[in-house]
Amino acid sequence: MIKVGIVGGTGYTGVELLRLLAGHPHVQLVTITSRSEKGVAVADLFPNLRGLVDLEFSEPLIDNLKSCDLVFFATPHGVAQDLVPEVLKAGIKVIDLSADFRLRDIALWEQWYAQTHRAPQLVEQAVYGLPEFNRSAISTANVVACPGCYPTSVQLGLMPLLEAGCIDVSDIIANSASGVSGAGRQASVANLFTEVSDSFKAYAASGHRHQPEIEQGLADIAGGPVGITFVPHLLPINRGIHTTIYANLLEADIDVQALFEQRYQNEPFVDVLPSGSHPQTRSVRGSNYCRIALHRPGNGNKLVILVAEDNLTKGASGQAVQCMNIMQGLDEGTGLASPALMP
Amino acid sequence: MIKVGIVGGTGYTGVELLRLLAGHPHVQLVTITSRSEKGVAVADLFPNLRGLVDLEFSEPLIDNLKSCDLVFFATPHGVAQDLVPEVLKAGIKVIDLSADFRLRDIALWEQWYAQTHRAPQLVEQAVYGLPEFNRSAISTANVVACPGCYPTSVQLGLMPLLEAGCIDVSDIIANSASGVSGAGRQASVANLFTEVSDSFKAYAASGHRHQPEIEQGLADIAGGPVGITFVPHLLPINRGIHTTIYANLLEADIDVQALFEQRYQNEPFVDVLPSGSHPQTRSVRGSNYCRIALHRPGNGNKLVILVAEDNLTKGASGQAVQCMNIMQGLDEGTGLASPALMP
Amino acid sequence: MIKVGIVGGTGYTGVELLRLLAGHPHVQLVTITSRSEKGVAVADLFPNLRGLVDLEFSEPLIDNLKSCDLVFFATPHGVAQDLVPEVLKAGIKVIDLSADFRLRDIALWEQWYAQTHRAPQLVEQAVYGLPEFNRSAISTANVVACPGCYPTSVQLGLMPLLEAGCIDVSDIIANSASGVSGAGRQASVANLFTEVSDSFKAYAASGHRHQPEIEQGLADIAGGPVGITFVPHLLPINRGIHTTIYANLLEADIDVQALFEQRYQNEPFVDVLPSGSHPQTRSVRGSNYCRIALHRPGNGNKLVILVAEDNLTKGASGQAVQCMNIMQGLDEGTGLASPALMP
Amino acid sequence: MIKVGIVGGTGYTGVELLRLLAGHPHVQLVTITSRSEKGVAVADLFPNLRGLVDLEFSEPLIDNLKSCDLVFFATPHGVAQDLVPEVLKAGIKVIDLSADFRLRDIALWEQWYAQTHRAPQLVEQAVYGLPEFNRSAISTANVVACPGCYPTSVQLGLMPLLEAGCIDVSDIIANSASGVSGAGRQASVANLFTEVSDSFKAYAASGHRHQPEIEQGLADIAGGPVGITFVPHLLPINRGIHTTIYANLLEADIDVQALFEQRYQNEPFVDVLPSGSHPQTRSVRGSNYCRIALHRPGNGNKLVILVAEDNLTKGASGQAVQCMNIMQGLDEGTGLASPALMP
Repeated sequence: MIKVGIVGGTGYTGVELLRLLAGHPHVQLVTITSRSEKGVAVADLFPNLRGLVDLEFSEPLIDNLKSCDLVFFATPHGVAQDLVPEVLKAGIKVIDLSADFRLRDIALWEQWYAQTHRAPQLVEQAVYGLPEFNRSAISTANVVACPGCYPTSVQLGLMPLLEAGCIDVSDIIANSASGVSGAGRQASVANLFTEVSDSFKAYAASGHRHQPEIEQGLADIAGGPVGITFVPHLLPINRGIHTTIYANLLEADIDVQALFEQRYQNEPFVDVLPSGSHPQTRSVRGSNYCRIALHRPGNGNKLVILVAEDNLTKGASGQAVQCMNIMQGLDEGTGLASPALMP
Repeated sequence: MIKVGIVGGTGYTGVELLRLLAGHPHVQLVTITSRSEKGVAVADLFPNLRGLVDLEFSEPLIDNLKSCDLVFFATPHGVAQDLVPEVLKAGIKVIDLSADFRLRDIALWEQWYAQTHRAPQLVEQAVYGLPEFNRSAISTANVVACPGCYPTSVQLGLMPLLEAGCIDVSDIIANSASGVSGAGRQASVANLFTEVSDSFKAYAASGHRHQPEIEQGLADIAGGPVGITFVPHLLPINRGIHTTIYANLLEADIDVQALFEQRYQNEPFVDVLPSGSHPQTRSVRGSNYCRIALHRPGNGNKLVILVAEDNLTKGASGQAVQCMNIMQGLDEGTGLASPALMP
Repeated sequence: MIKVGIVGGTGYTGVELLRLLAGHPHVQLVTITSRSEKGVAVADLFPNLRGLVDLEFSEPLIDNLKSCDLVFFATPHGVAQDLVPEVLKAGIKVIDLSADFRLRDIALWEQWYAQTHRAPQLVEQAVYGLPEFNRSAISTANVVACPGCYPTSVQLGLMPLLEAGCIDVSDIIANSASGVSGAGRQASVANLFTEVSDSFKAYAASGHRHQPEIEQGLADIAGGPVGITFVPHLLPINRGIHTTIYANLLEADIDVQALFEQRYQNEPFVDVLPSGSHPQTRSVRGSNYCRIALHRPGNGNKLVILVAEDNLTKGASGQAVQCMNIMQGLDEGTGLASPALMP
Repeated sequence: MIKVGIVGGTGYTGVELLRLLAGHPHVQLVTITSRSEKGVAVADLFPNLRGLVDLEFSEPLIDNLKSCDLVFFATPHGVAQDLVPEVLKAGIKVIDLSADFRLRDIALWEQWYAQTHRAPQLVEQAVYGLPEFNRSAISTANVVACPGCYPTSVQLGLMPLLEAGCIDVSDIIANSASGVSGAGRQASVANLFTEVSDSFKAYAASGHRHQPEIEQGLADIAGGPVGITFVPHLLPINRGIHTTIYANLLEADIDVQALFEQRYQNEPFVDVLPSGSHPQTRSVRGSNYCRIALHRPGNGNKLVILVAEDNLTKGASGQAVQCMNIMQGLDEGTGLASPALMP
């Protein structure tokens, strides 16, 4: 059994990790920390785990993590970088779900997250945890930086095209919409039920923190800079990201359906839908699948790529477990096989 | 492996059965029928099952079911009674999720369901599938009549009290509210998103089909007639039933919290919450748990019992799988251990 | 034109007052205060009012209110009592939407609101603002204490019965459910979209602050004490209260439908639905109507009363405007005639 | 008083017309027709209108419309064209909310609506009812073809830019999302609460019926062909359209905020938000406003235009009433001044 700890387990990625790990056949949950909820039973905060998770929240101290083989960080941005060095020194592997180790350009990170990075040396060492692109590096990593929820959807939606070099990389549009769980579990007026329900809006249309991560990720895949306009929107749903990508094909006579099907034929969690389909976010609710469909309106050169994932699963905790499985030499889908909850 | 068939697999209890059985370690799904969707791949109708369920819908004919050990009927009321006799004759066990075999009083059934019962002889033989009350009879049954969603919540909320004889059985109130999936997956104006969303109402307040089933079930538990007023309401949620029960305690100095905890201490799927709790339907979303909490406003004799279950899981398909496990001698929780999806 | 001020205009009852008063033909909005949003344009906080309300929030000081004829207090409990004495001294009438002046029993108020009451002398003077019961007293009042949202629905649902003396007043059940706007517009985890959406629960089942107000109001109507069990629930909707009341008729041969129709035939905002109806909360969304329907399951003595209102309108700001119209000698429905928004 | 009739009043644009016209000071509702609901009181179908609209549905016959000055058609596509000729012959003005008279290219209409057009001669005569572009022609029209909900949002979002000639018209993206009321009030599985709630998807991504109307409208504004990719999405909300438009500015040093503010400064129902804003659909819920905000991510040449409207109001029935006001020489905003309902 892999002994697993979770640092920062009171948010939605934390409870999602617990939900997935509670059913993982090779994992023993040994520690979960929360400064604010220290001493509280996990099941008191998250009653869905009553009878299934017995732990109490403990202090986020290295001593409480020492018996772990692997620790997930489900902390807000800027927290993991302080504790991760100690954890690594203790010979424990780390999967960080925050943005702390995603951007290789430290100055860019500091600009978007408005703080000084306190562990820049670890950024070089960290492996970007997108299995579909980085599987081999993940398998030997000590620190994995789990991709952001939006960036996962954009990269999976464009990967086959960028690898094949068949779209104009200078002008791509990614119009994304996310469920409210993407905003976290902090008290706020903006995310009250009464502010979000029965409504819809764009936000951060002039620039969102995931923009540089998206640009870095796409450039890595394409082997050169990619120009992309990314606009996120807030959906009145609990979970789910839907990204509608618009790209211009360089040649008209390419079979993009076949291109995607071939690229992802061996990927356990990327599902290319039949031609003409429209993925619904509910078809991946609570599951680790990413479903993709392709359209060419009027059979022109404009390609519309529809991508659906669960922001808490494939967009965060599910992908983290997938990375853990790869790091531990397990079958990549272990503990991740449940169908989405529908309706 | 138990070879399982599903008759009538295009509704919400059907897809919920498929979701649960797809992950059941001892079940092999061999047949799923639907007259209207014959030849269609299950995963085309329910994309959450892509890659997990390979079957196509076939005609609901006995020949398509003959290789099964057990068949679930997830058909509308009045359908199972025609095919079940043949299925039983073929030596196949049956779990019916419809109301066809729930009421022992045939005349009452015919009155509430406005049709002639065509297999009254089977009603006597059928075992009411509420494991918490009928476990032993279920284990040897050939036909199980799965309880209705509302009746499950009402019976579990009152069982310890009726068995202990500590409430006035002549005047009980059950104020229930259900998610929209309880209304099924038929085209209708009344259940359009735009008719239900951001709204709430009672329905059938003068009398609902589940009233006689509730009365029969409570009488069986109490050993005599029980007077109950049951009013259902429609919630703008996908899944979940919440029943608020009001009963008058016969004596003031009873510890109802202890009574419930003792009664349900060995029940795998009934969870008595700590004193002062309020169960949320989301805490059982997609899970087979029923969560119960008890309140005595002003410490008076009025007992308020709060019951939450998922109408598609413990209120239908999950309970059906629980019954199957009992009938097949498996651990009762096999395939039913996943935590609820939260948020 | 009546010069109107609003103290505490940043909550949901505040914006609802603004929405209603912006269209009121005899009202001039002169002041709106908010300590936290001082200097901010109202339309920046509530973009639905862009182009319709020009005011900025100002400090809640008596000097900013002196030009008003009437001031609404839409403040949290415990705030109005400090400023109202000064406002009254300046010859300005007051309608308080908080609980500060609702309970005549000061000790009871202090117990439920956990603070010392600082203007008990005003409580005697305050008139309870339920027009259907107190119209005449309201018309000459200087201070009106607007009823709570739940108490309005319970009192309107029981008034004809209590006045006629035809139910057992010792054992009434009021099972209520409210939209989330009833919880206010403060930052909180409990009322995040992701905590409330697609879920349902009871809360405060052991005792809610509206219990003593309900008991006082019903006793005033009945002319003696009334025993009622009140359990509130939280609905995943923005607006709307639905209360299901259970009462025992003292005699079987009473025509309750006629009783209600007669009692409310001249009430502009109480609508008794035809026999067999079920009021939906959306049928009163944004309107000042309260819709009521009556059922007698199995034609027995148990009477089920279904009551729907908008908690922000008839349950708060609409009722406050109705009281203002009465106090100012206007037609009671002025500015309140818009149909509910459906869908 | 203008005597008004409504043909086809049982859908959502019908009830929205009724809601708006019930409060219109210069309108007398004289007839409302529905073949299926003939003889039913309007208030029985739409309880929000109880006490406010007294009519019954009648047969859609010319004899029932003869006393009208103006008739709204709120019928499905393909219905108005049969009755409109008779209505016009009787000297009655017509505002059609369906698509029957929107497209000047009859062949294109027949291709997208899969039927033969039976009144092509009227198409020439019909005026496209977008007041912001066509006010003068509307004022003298006998037949107005009300714009579609999506096309309204796209045209208002692009009008200032196309008129100023400052964007590349060969490659525009309009990513739209609509509430479910846009799909109408017909029984269907696809629009059940349980199919739509807590989910999101694109639909008709390969081509939607509003595409040719959008192309025609933009070409009229631009004075030449415009290339646009339009992809609609389905939101789990009752009302509201949000369109996110992406366009390339031809020059970097243009002040688009000023351009929009100037263009719309005298428009009563187009509201250009301050720089940096993000319009929410709820800010226009039930109102006739269209709110627009502009963004230039990274201050580049890509312009992001955010447009919010209520699909039933500015996108249908509100715009129809606005056209009526213009045709009748009334102030354009008569009966349309209510603020949006928020929350």
